[in-house]
Amino acid sequence: MGGDFAPHATLQGAREALEAWPGLHLLLVGNEGVIRPLLAQHGFTPELMTRTELVHAFHTVAMDDKATCILKEKKDSSIRVAAQLVREGRAQGVVSMGHTGAAMVASSLVIGKLEGVDRPALASVLPNMMGKPTVLLDVGANVGSRAEHIAQFAVMGSVYAEEVLGVERPRVGILSVGEEDGKGTDVTKDASAMLRNIEIRFEGNAEGRDIWNGDFDVIACDGFVGNVVLKSSEALAEGIIGGLRESFMATPLTKFAGLLAKPALKRFKQKLDYAEYGGAPLLGVKGISIIGHGRSDAKAVRNAIRAALRAAEHRLHERIQERVALLLPQD
Amino acid sequence: MGGDFAPHATLQGAREALEAWPGLHLLLVGNEGVIRPLLAQHGFTPELMTRTELVHAFHTVAMDDKATCILKEKKDSSIRVAAQLVREGRAQGVVSMGHTGAAMVASSLVIGKLEGVDRPALASVLPNMMGKPTVLLDVGANVGSRAEHIAQFAVMGSVYAEEVLGVERPRVGILSVGEEDGKGTDVTKDASAMLRNIEIRFEGNAEGRDIWNGDFDVIACDGFVGNVVLKSSEALAEGIIGGLRESFMATPLTKFAGLLAKPALKRFKQKLDYAEYGGAPLLGVKGISIIGHGRSDAKAVRNAIRAALRAAEHRLHERIQERVALLLPQD
Repeated sequence: MGGDFAPHATLQGAREALEAWPGLHLLLVGNEGVIRPLLAQHGFTPELMTRTELVHAFHTVAMDDKATCILKEKKDSSIRVAAQLVREGRAQGVVSMGHTGAAMVASSLVIGKLEGVDRPALASVLPNMMGKPTVLLDVGANVGSRAEHIAQFAVMGSVYAEEVLGVERPRVGILSVGEEDGKGTDVTKDASAMLRNIEIRFEGNAEGRDIWNGDFDVIACDGFVGNVVLKSSEALAEGIIGGLRESFMATPLTKFAGLLAKPALKRFKQKLDYAEYGGAPLLGVKGISIIGHGRSDAKAVRNAIRAALRAAEHRLHERIQERVALLLPQD
Repeated sequence: MGGDFAPHATLQGAREALEAWPGLHLLLVGNEGVIRPLLAQHGFTPELMTRTELVHAFHTVAMDDKATCILKEKKDSSIRVAAQLVREGRAQGVVSMGHTGAAMVASSLVIGKLEGVDRPALASVLPNMMGKPTVLLDVGANVGSRAEHIAQFAVMGSVYAEEVLGVERPRVGILSVGEEDGKGTDVTKDASAMLRNIEIRFEGNAEGRDIWNGDFDVIACDGFVGNVVLKSSEALAEGIIGGLRESFMATPLTKFAGLLAKPALKRFKQKLDYAEYGGAPLLGVKGISIIGHGRSDAKAVRNAIRAALRAAEHRLHERIQERVALLLPQD
């Protein structure tokens, strides 16, 4: 029910996902009175309905609700009911395009955290300049991370890159203000020391530019800087693309040029398209949780479902559980 | 002597600055044996030489030197000698395109910090999407800032925007992970409280996107996040522009389109051009200190000198001194 284009984009993306992956079963969680009448219109054929189940949830978390409203006022909200399905084993994962905070609270508290994980982390899968994904986490605004949190983020991101994105031996870095080991805060230095002691391809400090140049597959950081850098990048990229569009509108000649260049520009835009990677996984919970952008269109919804499906097939949370255990003090 | 294109770009930019601003006097600090033979070649006429003085400095700080080398091994480096000229009142300001760390150390320790300023801050003047400058500080990688540091950054940035960039009543924000007052760390919240108590146009939390959308004129943050966001933005912008250039090279048709669109694209690139704003001021020292990008060309050098000139004309450091005093405990 959540997201700027719900329930239409969500239903259309869900239908496309069912068509694309025959092994997929979906539980659509939301207000049944709203959703059921829309199913036929969005192409849910009787065949697709054999793999679709409606689960009623009365409330919807609004964008200006507090994240914690699902614990009290809105216990019967779609995100909480969906998380409950994962907790009970009726679903392997939850996908949401709604209120990010509410989805994080529902996933952390209702599905529950994995042993050895202090803080679940929201991971953003960014398209880098080599045309590959770079996983940046935490971007979920968990502020004041300690060294062990950052180290856990790094391990969880590495497992996600390997299992779900198919990156072999992901190159992992910790975001800092210089390449050299001495650069950074006590937190980043201590986190680095922890990662050097375990089996992970840890390549030391990553700098701001490394988020985009493809030199790292996974970059771990505190949620404050992760959130700022993500929001800043979205705005900058939109601003540049928007400014270029404006430049093309300047004169009849440039309009004509824009027309000629359109297919090439479209291909380029696709390379940068966040929607391709399908939402941000919340890592460190006892199940799969994928949190999409509020502005997700049908394609983004479909790809978020694909991410959840892949993660479930690879039993992502079990792989994470095994690997974060390496960070625990050994007897 | 420092910078990727020194001494040629530096000399050319210096000569252009002398031509542009008749009130300007320059002391060129560096290896006299290298510089003197180049002056005529770079157009320093006898007339311009009446406003130009050469000050010899034997050493140059290399990019892989430690910032603190100017305190011991390289006491006779051009940046330290230049800072000494400011300290002695022979110059009102120093402009450097070299090693950022060395320039910061020289400015902070040789010129010295202003009373009431715990940490000088490097301010980046970024071109926002409204075609105006946004001042982001600290970007000098001073990590672990306390609330009073961030509050001082905010005040110093506000004075710079007003005095040097000509922004009337600059809108000042503190970088955080949400608009609401409750969002952020203890440090950002305490810094906000300090700014609410003084005469400054403080508009609360700024988010990552606000660095680019023009909603704030000044955004203060810890040097860790400032450094990361700046380096990340540089890489992202270059990547997008580079990717677009590649798209235009794809086919003969798109090459033709690129040709037609060239003037419009050039105008757009100019809007984004960091060089237009001329270097990053180091705020909080007892004089003017402008630190340019290592890749500065002659135009960037000229504009960095312009920034120093304007700052000197407005007695920037005295204005900062007056305003940071507002943050000190009042008897």
